[in-house]
Amino acid sequence: MNLVLLREEDFTAPGRVRIQGRRLRHVLEVHRAGVGDELVVGLLGGAVGRGRVTSLEGGLHLDVTLDRPPPPKLPLTLVLALPRPKVLNRTLAAATSLGAARIFLVNAWKVEKSYWKSPRLSEENLLEQRILGLEQARDTVLPELHLRRLLRPFAEDELPGILQGTLPILAHPGVPEPCPRAPGGPVTLVIGPEGGFIPAEVDLLARSGCRPVNLGERILRVETAVAALTGRLF
Amino acid sequence: MNLVLLREEDFTAPGRVRIQGRRLRHVLEVHRAGVGDELVVGLLGGAVGRGRVTSLEGGLHLDVTLDRPPPPKLPLTLVLALPRPKVLNRTLAAATSLGAARIFLVNAWKVEKSYWKSPRLSEENLLEQRILGLEQARDTVLPELHLRRLLRPFAEDELPGILQGTLPILAHPGVPEPCPRAPGGPVTLVIGPEGGFIPAEVDLLARSGCRPVNLGERILRVETAVAALTGRLF
Repeated sequence: MNLVLLREEDFTAPGRVRIQGRRLRHVLEVHRAGVGDELVVGLLGGAVGRGRVTSLEGGLHLDVTLDRPPPPKLPLTLVLALPRPKVLNRTLAAATSLGAARIFLVNAWKVEKSYWKSPRLSEENLLEQRILGLEQARDTVLPELHLRRLLRPFAEDELPGILQGTLPILAHPGVPEPCPRAPGGPVTLVIGPEGGFIPAEVDLLARSGCRPVNLGERILRVETAVAALTGRLF
Repeated sequence: MNLVLLREEDFTAPGRVRIQGRRLRHVLEVHRAGVGDELVVGLLGGAVGRGRVTSLEGGLHLDVTLDRPPPPKLPLTLVLALPRPKVLNRTLAAATSLGAARIFLVNAWKVEKSYWKSPRLSEENLLEQRILGLEQARDTVLPELHLRRLLRPFAEDELPGILQGTLPILAHPGVPEPCPRAPGGPVTLVIGPEGGFIPAEVDLLARSGCRPVNLGERILRVETAVAALTGRLF
């Protein structure tokens, strides 16, 4: 937690907040902050600044000054085949910390049906993981997150609009074209499930405008691939 | 597991192996392989090829042909401040899957002493995590791994030799110079602990030849930073 993310309801007066729960514990146990110490803070969806600890009685009391914009988002839309529940959390937090502006989680043949029933797909967890990514990267603006349980209507009806004005990259092992490097401008990056998209899905996505490219011989986990491709593209 | 990694002791005859334990369970439960199916296999430290399932009685029996070299390593040496135990496993597996040739885990002021006592630093676990990275990326060659519990002698006596002939990058938030992109040739990449290297450590590493560069405003987790920087540098 490199930034204490505040919400409107944390404010007890203008410029004064009181926080409790997970954030309080983290500040006490990891930062080991005491009265007088300064912490980096930010308002969810708003500005970034500093908070000075004024008291630890009944919660963490801070006097805060919010005076800087958060880091800009990358012009990056991620379209990810829904990862295994265990991998989903890490992937969402990593993608958020990297600065992706928008994330779509979509179905694919090799996405097990049970993944869509995971409790990790609750609104609450999907928010929590993105919050962790924001706190990591000192950002305050949540990436948009959308779930699409049917690939075909998504690819045919919605994806062409998403791709418009962006470089449309489909990371797919085994195709000859390498992933471009720092193309400049917005990118839509589509990444398949473990085991990859099946050929019919690659065709479907290509018909919708995606350009299949490879990232070398190595097959990477989705969260590793998202970071490596983001580093390469931006 | 995109490749079943074999060891010499798995061979029951030339071209024939029998495997058990974790690999057997994975092949049965995830690949759901049956007699006659083909799997990608590789020999630890050796070639890659295919194995055909001949029997499932008393283990997984494969007839194997090993006829291709593994993917080349990246000319990348990673020098990482020892991560939290929870993060260590993921970082080692990710770095291995990305193709790092050599990894040093080093001490730093903000590395908690308890991290060095974690059971995850056992030889067995350090091997296991790299094996998982190889299986993910269809590689067979372990990256070298070295532990250095004292930063100063490492930086003063050993690091200058490691840096020789490589681009010496120290990823450090807040410095003005951005990380270069695809420089071509070998790279040594040094990444600090959560909370960063302290100024005296940055000075020490810079005196040994490291060039501090930033990766933008965002602070990333070590495994995310390793992947993003590898994508950018290679």
